[in-house]
Amino acid sequence: MADPRFFDNAGPFDLARLAKVADAELRGDGARQFDDVMPLDQAKANHLSFFDNRKYLDAFKASNAGACVVTPDAADVAPAGMQLLVTKMPYHGYARIAALFYPRNAAKPGVAQTASVDPTATVDPSAEIAPGAVIGACAEIQTGVRIGANATVGRGVIIGANSEIGPGAGVANTIMGARCIIHSGVRIGHDGFGFAMGPGGHEKVAQLGRVIIGDDVEIGANTTIDRGTGPDTIIGSGTKIDNLVQIGHNVQLGQHCVIVSHVGISGSTTIGDFVVIGGQVGIAGHLKIGSGVQIAAQSGIMRDVPAGGKIGGSPAKPMREWMREIATLERMSKQKGK
Amino acid sequence: MADPRFFDNAGPFDLARLAKVADAELRGDGARQFDDVMPLDQAKANHLSFFDNRKYLDAFKASNAGACVVTPDAADVAPAGMQLLVTKMPYHGYARIAALFYPRNAAKPGVAQTASVDPTATVDPSAEIAPGAVIGACAEIQTGVRIGANATVGRGVIIGANSEIGPGAGVANTIMGARCIIHSGVRIGHDGFGFAMGPGGHEKVAQLGRVIIGDDVEIGANTTIDRGTGPDTIIGSGTKIDNLVQIGHNVQLGQHCVIVSHVGISGSTTIGDFVVIGGQVGIAGHLKIGSGVQIAAQSGIMRDVPAGGKIGGSPAKPMREWMREIATLERMSKQKGK
Amino acid sequence: MADPRFFDNAGPFDLARLAKVADAELRGDGARQFDDVMPLDQAKANHLSFFDNRKYLDAFKASNAGACVVTPDAADVAPAGMQLLVTKMPYHGYARIAALFYPRNAAKPGVAQTASVDPTATVDPSAEIAPGAVIGACAEIQTGVRIGANATVGRGVIIGANSEIGPGAGVANTIMGARCIIHSGVRIGHDGFGFAMGPGGHEKVAQLGRVIIGDDVEIGANTTIDRGTGPDTIIGSGTKIDNLVQIGHNVQLGQHCVIVSHVGISGSTTIGDFVVIGGQVGIAGHLKIGSGVQIAAQSGIMRDVPAGGKIGGSPAKPMREWMREIATLERMSKQKGK
Repeated sequence: MADPRFFDNAGPFDLARLAKVADAELRGDGARQFDDVMPLDQAKANHLSFFDNRKYLDAFKASNAGACVVTPDAADVAPAGMQLLVTKMPYHGYARIAALFYPRNAAKPGVAQTASVDPTATVDPSAEIAPGAVIGACAEIQTGVRIGANATVGRGVIIGANSEIGPGAGVANTIMGARCIIHSGVRIGHDGFGFAMGPGGHEKVAQLGRVIIGDDVEIGANTTIDRGTGPDTIIGSGTKIDNLVQIGHNVQLGQHCVIVSHVGISGSTTIGDFVVIGGQVGIAGHLKIGSGVQIAAQSGIMRDVPAGGKIGGSPAKPMREWMREIATLERMSKQKGK
Repeated sequence: MADPRFFDNAGPFDLARLAKVADAELRGDGARQFDDVMPLDQAKANHLSFFDNRKYLDAFKASNAGACVVTPDAADVAPAGMQLLVTKMPYHGYARIAALFYPRNAAKPGVAQTASVDPTATVDPSAEIAPGAVIGACAEIQTGVRIGANATVGRGVIIGANSEIGPGAGVANTIMGARCIIHSGVRIGHDGFGFAMGPGGHEKVAQLGRVIIGDDVEIGANTTIDRGTGPDTIIGSGTKIDNLVQIGHNVQLGQHCVIVSHVGISGSTTIGDFVVIGGQVGIAGHLKIGSGVQIAAQSGIMRDVPAGGKIGGSPAKPMREWMREIATLERMSKQKGK
Repeated sequence: MADPRFFDNAGPFDLARLAKVADAELRGDGARQFDDVMPLDQAKANHLSFFDNRKYLDAFKASNAGACVVTPDAADVAPAGMQLLVTKMPYHGYARIAALFYPRNAAKPGVAQTASVDPTATVDPSAEIAPGAVIGACAEIQTGVRIGANATVGRGVIIGANSEIGPGAGVANTIMGARCIIHSGVRIGHDGFGFAMGPGGHEKVAQLGRVIIGDDVEIGANTTIDRGTGPDTIIGSGTKIDNLVQIGHNVQLGQHCVIVSHVGISGSTTIGDFVVIGGQVGIAGHLKIGSGVQIAAQSGIMRDVPAGGKIGGSPAKPMREWMREIATLERMSKQKGK
């Protein structure tokens, strides 16, 4: 069970409710109570688990879990007596059940005594402003928002309903949608890296745009997102960004992208929907990356990538060419070595 | 126009003043008033724009901008009636005009109620200490400095005149010059990564140096700069550092360098003036990189680089060799594929 | 001498005590007093230095240092009159002497007025809670701990004896051992990057594990460590992590590892003891890296690495093969160029 020092278990729940939450077909006793979620190998009779990777077939067959979320074909090989929730997407079903047992902490309405809220800011009475948080002039904190300890929200910023800003994070010059999760130490809306460079030194160019963030965006710890130069930097709804990522000014990220840690996206690059970018990828500025593109970790992107492309390497090329080049060099090197 | 929730427009200004600020020749009506800066394609009669990239020639010819900063040769093809500010460096001119319309916020003198200033610290009456900021013993905050919300300034630190420290940033063991811009979440002056390594474990080596920062330095969000081991870590005047960069102990960075995000510079490396380092470059320790060197993104630098060198790849080599190697491998791989 | 604005010198000490601290053989006058540590080329009669790299032999022979920590064979070539502390590990000896002269600041017991400590938290009376720090419900701050300015410690977290949390750092969902040094801006224990991905969007998967940190761990500025998904993320005792490193959920790091900046370790990867990982290395998820492995900077690790392996490149391979491939490509490219 999750350590109760850190997590509150909202259970137990009966199986009928869990089936409904998971949008799964119930094959078992809907009235039976379950206390927790648990991995296959640790689960007991009062626990629910999930199975969606054939690699764990043995663990599934040997599991003592009282109930399990499974695919239709897995149902046939389940241990006798195991209650089943059958769905084509067991991991999604499990995710929803886990969120039912361990909901994110709701806002505890009110402003902590050591927080500092500018008198011109609007804070919904349902929002939580933790100790040490600082809310700037004319900022708007909507219903159910949680602002973490020592977080800072700049002048004029809007934080949409039920979003949460982690401890020590800083948000400026930003309009943020609903249900976003901004982890600790994230920096959003500071100046982009814009200079009129010259032999006598580099003149700063005022950065006059904003950051516009959609709904259901998650941004990992210590990630940085620059505001636009005049146009805005845009993060589409449903996009998930890992830790320590850098997003340059005027970047437009589409919806439901997944961006792994240490990625750097240079200024004014446009990225479509459902793009997946592996860790430590670098993308040059002013490029267009189409929807559905997948980029291997550590790649360096110097050119536009059409929708659906799968690329890798530095400089990046289609995945197959990159793999072939790796193999070619390996073979030649071995020949030379003989 | 820049969103007034976030930016204050100090205009309007007459064209004569704008010409003077841009150090440009006025070809037009100096008394005419302008309300804002704007891109070529959005600018109207009361807006000023700039044109310095032939790629946007069509946009320039079709622009409704009332005035434009241009190069001498562009003046000949300007739309009829457009007021012109003519200079060899239009982007620099524009940068200064934009800064006139949208000056960085001046310090609002005073110490916020929730800030904590050690009684032995010196804070100039013209400086601004925002809510939650913490100023340590014997620190010195000079004229016009802005210390952002929840920023921390350690014992003995000097912040030079008119510099600004962003929200949540932390500065320790540092002597900083004038007019520096330190963005949110930056960490300066903590211990470098120094250990006497051994088979029984790693013994910590005290880091007894400082960080010395010149004038007009800009440091991007969440960047980290270690203090020296005994010698100091030095950042030269006019150098601009992007987000999430790591500068190791005893590094000496020259003047007017440009360092893009995710770069890592290992300890005791010395870098000249006007060096440009692309994103995600890694530089080994104890190297000498000469002035004017340019390093392509994602390169790995293992050896000294003479002044003026242009290098790329990992391990890095002269740009031309690197390009040739990329082409060689590509060609060979295609031959093998046949 | 270290700048007294930033560092307090606890000396002088007599040579007998320094020999004892360094675990070295005293060849000289144990009663003689020394005021400071200093590099060979700057040291005077009242200073102690060290010599363990033949590269600096000339500096050693010419040094005016009153005393020096040296290897047995170096003792024979020491300048006349220099007092010697003889040991097989002079750098370790020096490290301990430097720590004697410049001990890390001890906690100044007490809770600052602007700190916020939840009434259910336990703070040992010997601990220091700096201004603006926020300590959550049921957290436990043990003896001699220092919590820096504006740092945040979440609900239920345990900070072991004599550990220190830097300014602006954030620790949540974590059990930390003794004598750890967590630098400014570090983020520990936030959600890992876990989603049930799908064509309709990505469903968040609750992250129900913790971060378990051993003793004597050091973690560099702005580094991020995700908590586990259910299992825990584990950092072994004595491990040293540089700045801006990313450690994914469920990663298990062994003891006495050294991890240089910008490294990213993906979820569920297990790493043995005494592993050394160069800067900007990326390691894929669910891998096993054996003890004693050494990984060259910027490498990309896609497969398990057996204990003792030395690897480099992206994708990584044994160091010798990687070197040979680099040489092969260079040679072929030059042939083509002719």
